[in-house]
Order: sequence, then structure tokens, then C-alpha cells
Amino acid sequence: FDVVDHSTYVFLGDGCLMEGVSHEVCSLAGTLGLGKLICLYDDNGISIDGDVAGWFSDDTPARFRAYGWHVVEAVDGHDPQAVSDAIAAAKADLGRPSLICCKTIIGFGAKNKQGTAATHGAPLGDEEIAVARETLRWPHEPFEIPQAIRTAWDATEIGRAHEARWLALFEAYAAEFPEQAAEFQRRMNGELPEDFDRRAGQAVTTIAAEAKDMATRKASERALNELGEWLPELLGGSADLTGSNNTFHANSSAIAAGAGGNYVFYGVREFGMAAIMNGLALHGGFIPYGGTFLTFADYARNALRMAALMEQGSIFVFTHDSIGLGEDGPTHQPIEHVASLRLMPNMRVWRPCDAVETAVAWRDAIARRNGPTSLILTRQGLPHQLRTSDQIDAITRGGYILFSTPATPEVILIATGSEVGLAMAAAKQLAEERVEVRVVSMPCVELFDSQSSDYREHVLPAAVTARVAVEAGSTGLWWRHVGSGGAVLGIDHFGASAPAKQLFEKFGITSEAVIKAARSLK
Amino acid sequence: FDVVDHSTYVFLGDGCLMEGVSHEVCSLAGTLGLGKLICLYDDNGISIDGDVAGWFSDDTPARFRAYGWHVVEAVDGHDPQAVSDAIAAAKADLGRPSLICCKTIIGFGAKNKQGTAATHGAPLGDEEIAVARETLRWPHEPFEIPQAIRTAWDATEIGRAHEARWLALFEAYAAEFPEQAAEFQRRMNGELPEDFDRRAGQAVTTIAAEAKDMATRKASERALNELGEWLPELLGGSADLTGSNNTFHANSSAIAAGAGGNYVFYGVREFGMAAIMNGLALHGGFIPYGGTFLTFADYARNALRMAALMEQGSIFVFTHDSIGLGEDGPTHQPIEHVASLRLMPNMRVWRPCDAVETAVAWRDAIARRNGPTSLILTRQGLPHQLRTSDQIDAITRGGYILFSTPATPEVILIATGSEVGLAMAAAKQLAEERVEVRVVSMPCVELFDSQSSDYREHVLPAAVTARVAVEAGSTGLWWRHVGSGGAVLGIDHFGASAPAKQLFEKFGITSEAVIKAARSLK
Repeated sequence: FDVVDHSTYVFLGDGCLMEGVSHEVCSLAGTLGLGKLICLYDDNGISIDGDVAGWFSDDTPARFRAYGWHVVEAVDGHDPQAVSDAIAAAKADLGRPSLICCKTIIGFGAKNKQGTAATHGAPLGDEEIAVARETLRWPHEPFEIPQAIRTAWDATEIGRAHEARWLALFEAYAAEFPEQAAEFQRRMNGELPEDFDRRAGQAVTTIAAEAKDMATRKASERALNELGEWLPELLGGSADLTGSNNTFHANSSAIAAGAGGNYVFYGVREFGMAAIMNGLALHGGFIPYGGTFLTFADYARNALRMAALMEQGSIFVFTHDSIGLGEDGPTHQPIEHVASLRLMPNMRVWRPCDAVETAVAWRDAIARRNGPTSLILTRQGLPHQLRTSDQIDAITRGGYILFSTPATPEVILIATGSEVGLAMAAAKQLAEERVEVRVVSMPCVELFDSQSSDYREHVLPAAVTARVAVEAGSTGLWWRHVGSGGAVLGIDHFGASAPAKQLFEKFGITSEAVIKAARSLK
Repeated sequence: FDVVDHSTYVFLGDGCLMEGVSHEVCSLAGTLGLGKLICLYDDNGISIDGDVAGWFSDDTPARFRAYGWHVVEAVDGHDPQAVSDAIAAAKADLGRPSLICCKTIIGFGAKNKQGTAATHGAPLGDEEIAVARETLRWPHEPFEIPQAIRTAWDATEIGRAHEARWLALFEAYAAEFPEQAAEFQRRMNGELPEDFDRRAGQAVTTIAAEAKDMATRKASERALNELGEWLPELLGGSADLTGSNNTFHANSSAIAAGAGGNYVFYGVREFGMAAIMNGLALHGGFIPYGGTFLTFADYARNALRMAALMEQGSIFVFTHDSIGLGEDGPTHQPIEHVASLRLMPNMRVWRPCDAVETAVAWRDAIARRNGPTSLILTRQGLPHQLRTSDQIDAITRGGYILFSTPATPEVILIATGSEVGLAMAAAKQLAEERVEVRVVSMPCVELFDSQSSDYREHVLPAAVTARVAVEAGSTGLWWRHVGSGGAVLGIDHFGASAPAKQLFEKFGITSEAVIKAARSLK
């Protein structure tokens, strides 16, 4: 039952083939032998700055053969039969992706401008349009399509026939394999299993009961082990950091050329990975997730933005989230990254403080099918935080009261991720000094900001202006939550190479510093 | 006088060759025929996730030949003579960059772990170190270098001889061409011309006297025309947007294979461009600048960060800086980009409001040789702002009073770039209504923040809590400057495709909205 038998077509220009991401994804497509991938290269030799000969002289067919592709060279892109024949040849090669090199003239027919950058971004103008009409022998009015052409291009009937054939095939499939057919439809419709809420909730409860201290990257693997077993649409991967990102869970199996599975070894290709994840999300039937170090999110930033703009539910697993990664030093230590992801419209950013918040973050990321999520995870171990079941429920609000002395707080400590533990230690010390203190854990700022004003006032009462935010990264965005009367402990300079503990002390991200800031404000 | 005759050596691994940027820069290097570029590829077939065969099966020599490179294949990377011969062959090819493919075994000698990912990032351990010592017949203590090896590798004498030969050559050069030799030394020392301050100041004065309304991208070209004439170390370029970025000034000439010049047509390669600019800065003798659309800064973000981390003075020209670019729509409209660049440590971000601020921004970017600058420029025309000469001098402080009614302000409007004009219109309306109002233009937030507290208090008195910031982008970072009593007008969602004027109205970035916000606060 060949219910999935479509090809994927890509249109490429010279500019696309100059961009680095073309290398990352086409190299991997060759290795994986993606025979259903057919790329049509519009080889017109012109980019915005002019004739590409001055900046792009690749032998592109040779380049793609080096990737293991099937290349159809020297096709006349203005000859429909030649293009059609090339597509047929591409479809016949089931073991390799195909590149069809279509030689074309940009602005074909506009005789005085064709073959130049003048036809790239600017309108032709009335005079040149008249020339083109004459060259192309096109006497028809604008938007008038002659009947002969309309008939030749009308695919209604053939489309209807194709659809009927597929529906009959699917009906036969469903008759013989009703469960699989229903599962296929569920996944292609982008629906979660009916019992998702119950089972995902159970996973959170189980993990909370374990009450384990662990790095949140390990906690992420723990959550995936719970969820991956019954969510086969999860399609994982890592950009060559599988063991560090903890993305390969108990039910993961590697995809290879000619071998199915649910895990892609993307290689050292962060941008390619994120772009492919978006393609998988757009295709449907999958919930893609993929890991790299947070600092390398910079490589993939355009694809992260595209996921947000296209409202696709890609899940980006970013581990090694601060100076807490230690010895690898400033090239690998994120400073501005968490804040810069929070700035991206429609990107949801979770920075959980322990295994429980990590499990809730995963549940939320999977449930969120109309936008991407970035999971910001530590390399280093973090303490488990005790919570009531109401507090566990409140995690989904993005910010909640994790600890509070009984009376109205004199000071509120706001923290995320690895700094929640520091804030809790500081609060306990302050409470012993009879300071009325509250700790707000805010693993997802966007979700907290989207709560009702009542809820936000409940967590952060306007009357309490003594507020300290602590996060081992850029401070700039926290002023909105702490206000003019508050303080922000963070890091606005590059990191350094040393054991994590030393770095936190050196850069003043300690419970002592939190206590000092709180005392100075209250 | 071959005073510049060095080669540039690059060490590459499998991971480097998977990354997209390897395509961008190696393709361009081939086109430009960079014969002095010699790359040694450590082809060990292992990356962190294991044997690369599962995710990287490129025929790399064929790929590089497709770029027009000279490729030396199948070199035994453990055979010094073979590597040395390959380097000699590479040096002999003056017209093409060379790739030397060195087949190696990772962890060579550690018999039980060599050739596997176990030797990539983790220590070998005492036992395996003992094995390696035996295999390699290395009986010496740690850090003990046997005399025979020390002697063979000691390059002191040969280095001294090379240096003496070069110094004699340079002396002869300086005797015959004293001006050129002095100029060479100035540039290689990274010193600006002695009269830089005077001439750059004169350029600002000239441009201020012209008092012209124009897009800041045009103003940038205007500034370059003034500066480029007598700053030959400026090495420009654009990632295929020369006409849009206005980066090709009156004294620009294109670099091509075998042809010198001061302008690189980088092709559609934003990341490659930024990385190459950093390389040029590190090499010395050049002040690199390069243009693309601001939204495409995302592609180059890692190279921007590296410039900041390495304290290199690359100048990034980012035009089309907001919804003001209009019809190209949300893929091209920056929202979070200005804020996310401001978050990057050691990155200086200028968003000038007219031709005068643009000229000052260029002067500052060129004078700043220990860190990168991003120039954020408009597509659309902006009005010239009238200033006293004191106000022109104050631009270099990053934020200054552009307009003020005589008394202590009831409300302060803070704006950057294209929104300064809106703030000025709003202020004039408010002044007519007898509101005491001040406009602070803040083209460079980092510079303003680095001023003395006296100066900052002078511009933004703590007593004036009614403050409105307006900028057509993310609002999040402005709360620090407006405080709890303030308001921020900006855009925290993706843009849309429409004429710019309509978008500013639709998204509430208008002088009327500024007036309304100001009235609600004062």
C-alpha cells in the first residue's frame, strides 16, 4: 500500500547555491540517499549585483556529484519537454536525490533587459513590457488567459483522477490495517494521541515523585524516555552532539540511507538541522526536535526565526546554557543567547530549573503545534525543588511562587534555570534573618506574560518594588519585571574558561550576591 | 619589493567541512583564485557522534575541484615528508587555493581507542596513555622534550635569518619608496592617519552643512565618499546587495582574480562575508566593512559574535532596518534584530536618525579598532535634524538632548533612527500645547550607558519619570531607560507586506501615538 509516494520538489537559484545552508542540507541528502528529492536549479547566471561570474564560478553539477547526487546537466529551462524528461529521469532514480540544471535567461523575452540584473528586482516598465509582448508573441490583455492555454494547463480532471485513485488505495489500506490507517491520519492531521494530557501528566507526576537532582539535559532525556515510547511522531536528532545534548532516548533508532528510524545524525550542521526540522514540520506527520549547544543557536538563527514566522512546532534542544558549562570557555558560553531568543516573536523559551520543570517544558513544547519552542538546558547538575501539586500545575503558567514566607513579601527573588537553586538558598538565609521573602521561578517568561493581570499581580504584587532577578546571562530584558526599584544579577560580558563553580563566584552569580542585593533593596 | 609574500594556512577537520560557512568562503576563494591560501584537511573520518560515514560522505577532493581549487589528494598525514611535499606543491600553484587532504588516524598510537570518537573530547586515561607511550616508543617523562627533537624543531636561527632578510628587503623598499613604506607600516600597525580626527570632523561638518533629508543608507554612502578618498585601508563589500546597501563609494574598485581593489562582491554569502571580514581585520592593514539587509544579520550572527569576542574592528553595514522597508514583508523586516545586536557584549550598535548622525557613526566605527560596530540604516528617507555645534559634538556620547522646551521637562521622549523624526513632530505638537518636553536622540545606547552618571542625569534626570521610548522594533530592552513610570512604543510581533507609511500607522508607530503616550504619563 503505497499511501506515501510523493516527491518533494525544490526550486533553487544561483543565490540559494551560494548560501552555506545549501551545502549542509544537500550534503546530508546525498548521504541519506533521498531519492524522492528533486531540485530544479534555475541557472540564469545573474544575482542582484550582476553577472555571477565575478563571485560564483562553482562547477555546480560536479559539486552535487561530489555529494552523491544524480545530476541532470544542461537542460534548456525554456523547453518544457526537456524539463519534463529531466523530471522523469529524476523520478526514475530512487536511490539518490536529483539536481536538474536548467539553463535559463532571466527576464526571457524582455529583449533589452533579459539576461541582466535589471530584471531581478525592479519592474520592467511599460516600454520593455511592450517589447516582451512582441518577442513572445503575446497579444492578449493583462490577466487574459487564452482558452488553448487554459485547457492545456487545467489539471482539474487529472487531479481528480489521482485523488480518487489514492482515496481508493487508502480505503483498501484502512480495510486491511485499520489501526495503522487511523494512526497515519492522526499524525498527518497533526493531532496528538487522545490520551496525551493524561499520559504526559502522568510522566510529569512520575518524574516529580523521583525527586532527583540532575542536569536538565539529563532531565530532558528522562522526559523523552517517558514520552518517546508512545509518541512515535517525535523525530529527533542532534548536530553531532548526541551524547552531550542527551537527545537519543530509549526508543530512538537511527535513520540511514534506505533505513527508517526516528533519529537523524545531522552531522556538524546546526543551520541545516533546524531548516530540515522546519521542513519536516511543514510536511506534517512529525514533531521534529533537534539538539545542539545553546551558543550554536547563532548558526541556526534564521531557521529559528522562520519556524516562528511560519508558526511551525519545531522543538530546539539547546544544552550547555551558560558559563555553567565551564572549561570550554567563552566561545561556547552563552551570554546573550537566552535573551535574544526571548526577543524573537512567537518563539517560546523554556529555561527549567530541575527535572520537573523540564518535563513540563517538554509537555508544553509538544502540545504547542503553532510555534517553535527552545528548551534551554544545563550541562551541570541542578537540585530538585520540592513542590505541592498546585505548584506543579502552576509551572505551565511560565512563572509561579516556588517559595514564600507567610506575610506579604518585603522582597521578591525572580530566577530561572540554574539560578533558581541560588535564589532558594538565598531565600532560606533571608527567611532565617526574618525577612519576608518570596522566590518566583520563571522558566517561561512569554507564558508568564500572557497570564491574566490578576495572576501576574498575585505572583508579582505591584506594591512590592524590591525585586531581584537573577539569571546567568544578559540582564537587559529583566528590568521590565523588576522595575525601577529592583536589581538584576546577570552577566553582560563574555565568559571565561574555568570550572563552573569558580566562574559563578568570579562573575558574582551566587546566593551571597542575591542576599546582598535583596538586603540593599528591602 | 616582495614585502608581502606570506601564505595563509588553515587547518580543517571533517566538522569544519560539514559547516555551511566552509562552502561560502571556499567557493569564493576559488573564484578569486587565492593562490596564497593553503588548507590542510585533517581527514580522520571521526566527529563527536562517531564515524562520519553515517552523515558525511562527500567526495571532498571533487567538491573542492568544483570550486576551482588545486587539490592534493591522499596525503599520509602521519608522514612529515609527504605533508611537506604537498605544501611545496601548494605553494607552487599561485593561481588557485590549495586543499591538502591528509588522511590521519585520530588518537594515533592510543591503540585501543585510536580511530574512534573516544579520543575526540575525553581524556585518554592513564592506562591508554601508557599504551600510547609504548606504541609510539616514547619513554620520556611528561613535558620532557628530548634534545634531538628540540634541535630538529628549533626554528630560532632560521627564523632570525628570515626576519633579517625581510628587514633588509623592507629597508631597501623604504629607501626607494619612503612614503609607501611609511604608509604600509601605518596600516599594518593599525594606526589611523595622523589627521584622522581633523578630516573626519571636517566630513561631519560638511555633511551637517548640507542639511539634507535622505535615507541613512544613502547618508552612509555620502559619509563613505568623504572618508573613502583618504582612508585606503577601508576594504568594502556587500553580500550581493551593493546597490541596496550603498556600500560602493566613489573610490571603490572591485577585487577580482588577479586584480587588486578595495571592494569585494561577496555574493549571497552573509556569514562568509562577515567571517572573511574578521579574517581581514585579524590579518591587519585593513578596516573591513560589509553590507547586507539587517534581517540577514541572523545568517552571520556567529561571525558578529566572534568579531566582538576577538575584539576586532569589523564594520557591519545593515540596511533596511525595520518595517520601514515596506513591501518585502515579514521575512525581510527586522523586529528583534537591533535589540539582539545590542545584547551582544562588545558589539557597538549605531542607529542614526539622519545624515549627520550617520557620519558620526561612521567616524566612531572607524576610530574603534578594538571591537565591531553595527550600523543600522534605513531604506526610507529621513528628515535632517537641526543641531547646534555642541549638539553635533554630543552625538558621540551615544545619547543627547536634541530638543527641549526651556523648563524642566514634564515628559522625555527617547528615540532612535527613523523614530527620531516622529518624536520631534510629537514634541513640537506637545510644546504647542505648553507641555514641557524633551527629545533625546539615542543612536548608540552602549555609548550613552558608558557616559558619566552626571552626563546621564543631565540628559535623563531621575526626577522625570514620565518617559516614552519609541523605536520600530522589540520593546524589551527599553524598560531600563524609561523605568516603571514610562512607556515603550515598539513592535513585538512580525511585520507585514505593505507600503511603509501604512505599516507605521497600522502598528502604532506614529507621532500621534507618541503624543498620546506622553499625555497619559505626564
